[in-house]
Amino acid sequence: MGNKITSLYQIKYPIIQAGMVWCAGWELASAASNAGGLGIIGSGSMYPDILEEHVKKCQKATANPFAVNVPLLYPDIEKHMQVIIRNKVKHVFTSAGNPKSWTSILQKEGVTVTHVVPSVKFALKAEEAGVDAIVAEGFEAGGHNGRDETTTMVLIPLVRKQTNLPLLAAGGIADGRSMLAAMILGADGVQIGSRFAACIESSAHNNFKEAIVSAKEGDTILTMKDLTPVRLIKNKFYQEIQKLEDKCASKEDLAAHLGRGRAKKGMFEGDLESGELEIGQVSAHISEIKSAASILQEIWEEYNAAMQDIKNFPAE
Amino acid sequence: MGNKITSLYQIKYPIIQAGMVWCAGWELASAASNAGGLGIIGSGSMYPDILEEHVKKCQKATANPFAVNVPLLYPDIEKHMQVIIRNKVKHVFTSAGNPKSWTSILQKEGVTVTHVVPSVKFALKAEEAGVDAIVAEGFEAGGHNGRDETTTMVLIPLVRKQTNLPLLAAGGIADGRSMLAAMILGADGVQIGSRFAACIESSAHNNFKEAIVSAKEGDTILTMKDLTPVRLIKNKFYQEIQKLEDKCASKEDLAAHLGRGRAKKGMFEGDLESGELEIGQVSAHISEIKSAASILQEIWEEYNAAMQDIKNFPAE
Repeated sequence: MGNKITSLYQIKYPIIQAGMVWCAGWELASAASNAGGLGIIGSGSMYPDILEEHVKKCQKATANPFAVNVPLLYPDIEKHMQVIIRNKVKHVFTSAGNPKSWTSILQKEGVTVTHVVPSVKFALKAEEAGVDAIVAEGFEAGGHNGRDETTTMVLIPLVRKQTNLPLLAAGGIADGRSMLAAMILGADGVQIGSRFAACIESSAHNNFKEAIVSAKEGDTILTMKDLTPVRLIKNKFYQEIQKLEDKCASKEDLAAHLGRGRAKKGMFEGDLESGELEIGQVSAHISEIKSAASILQEIWEEYNAAMQDIKNFPAE
Repeated sequence: MGNKITSLYQIKYPIIQAGMVWCAGWELASAASNAGGLGIIGSGSMYPDILEEHVKKCQKATANPFAVNVPLLYPDIEKHMQVIIRNKVKHVFTSAGNPKSWTSILQKEGVTVTHVVPSVKFALKAEEAGVDAIVAEGFEAGGHNGRDETTTMVLIPLVRKQTNLPLLAAGGIADGRSMLAAMILGADGVQIGSRFAACIESSAHNNFKEAIVSAKEGDTILTMKDLTPVRLIKNKFYQEIQKLEDKCASKEDLAAHLGRGRAKKGMFEGDLESGELEIGQVSAHISEIKSAASILQEIWEEYNAAMQDIKNFPAE
């Protein structure tokens, strides 16, 4: 038995593996899609030729649909979109930018467009732009995040009230219970990042995967609010940024210290001290590095079991 | 059909009305208890003689159990506890302090003790102190809040994993869907603040109630992190604090600007410009000032309806 989300993407479970930079290559995306979810290639950390390689390899590795995530602020976006259209990728997830620019162009090529938003305001703009679905991502999510700091618990019902579009919840979700909770709040499915960042097929460095499974409550923070807010693990790099912020450093000084390539250094090269380790609060729940297929299966089973538990809840 | 929470407090619905300062007097607490929830008198804004008056009036207004919330850092706490014991109040909710100091003293007098925590760490300390139940409160909650910024979606499953104590979820909950979501995450019931702060029987100033029902997404923020973190509406008072923080004012300067009595000024006297307006993110969902009884009834009906909706969810 499916729903709006399984119909839209033609998948078995309404579970989407998020397209995280430096984690979500063809190995992860094809594994998630083969296991009945929707796998996403994260193009935010790829040059166009690398993206094309990943798309082609993903197509060889799975007969099931998969998606590409494209940050709309990506400088070479034109080339990324050409790769997507040329290779007949079925689904695109856009984020970090105005969905008006590419939605109808992609749709004319038969590509569905899902846009990631952190607030109702941007959800309504996405609907205006004609997107096929929305991901609403709460404050607890890893990586770049909105300025309103609205949590998943508050955000999902707010967005649901305003739109009938297929709606995915993201942020704070890593198992079947949080999946069911998000769906009760009004989502039609979930997008999961952190748990897949730490999975076997993730292209993240093993040091980063170990850092995710070791992370405990309070180990992540939404920081760099003067530049672009990002949730990451509080490592040495963060402490340095924090010191600068504590003495009211200028945006320029912060940007200079941040430099370039910090996310690659941390997440892909495994430098846990001076790299940027983007991950969600829900990392506190993640304790094992498993395969994408076993994660998907486990989440689906927990979700089904949680539905049965409700029979023992107090009721009228 | 009840559960751990309805048994512990001897109430009909596992719905607790939070003991908010300047909002939760005997009128609100008795109305919530009469309607089948657990009403709480918020003693944090009361002198001991005022608290005694509220307790006596509450006892006259309802035959059902109710509770008193006591911030453990309250200077005259000894006198507050004497009022509670002398008047045979059945339940105490403690917050903001070490639960070791009063838990066993109260329990010897036949009072149940429920402690409010923002993290797993403090939940475990509360369990060690022998409390009867725990309220775990997420980042999205109004008023004073923890430093780890863990959201309800992430916090409730973390606490549930570590303890079998009766567990109430708080933060981001204002209706029956969010109540059911919190229970799927592992709570046995919910504590609701913002929605009751804006209800007819709340002793808050009407200006504050109107500010709550007008609040939209992004209108609250967790601020004053250098002093004691508090979530409030971004009004003129907040903008001033923000300006001081932006130029790296010292803690002393911040404390001097904050002064005393800001919460009373805003919430009780209705000064929306220079008062402190403590409220949760979920205020964005609240659009009407209703009676406590109709709020409780509505939440319970929505919760029961949401359980039925699950039958249409995708499943195995």
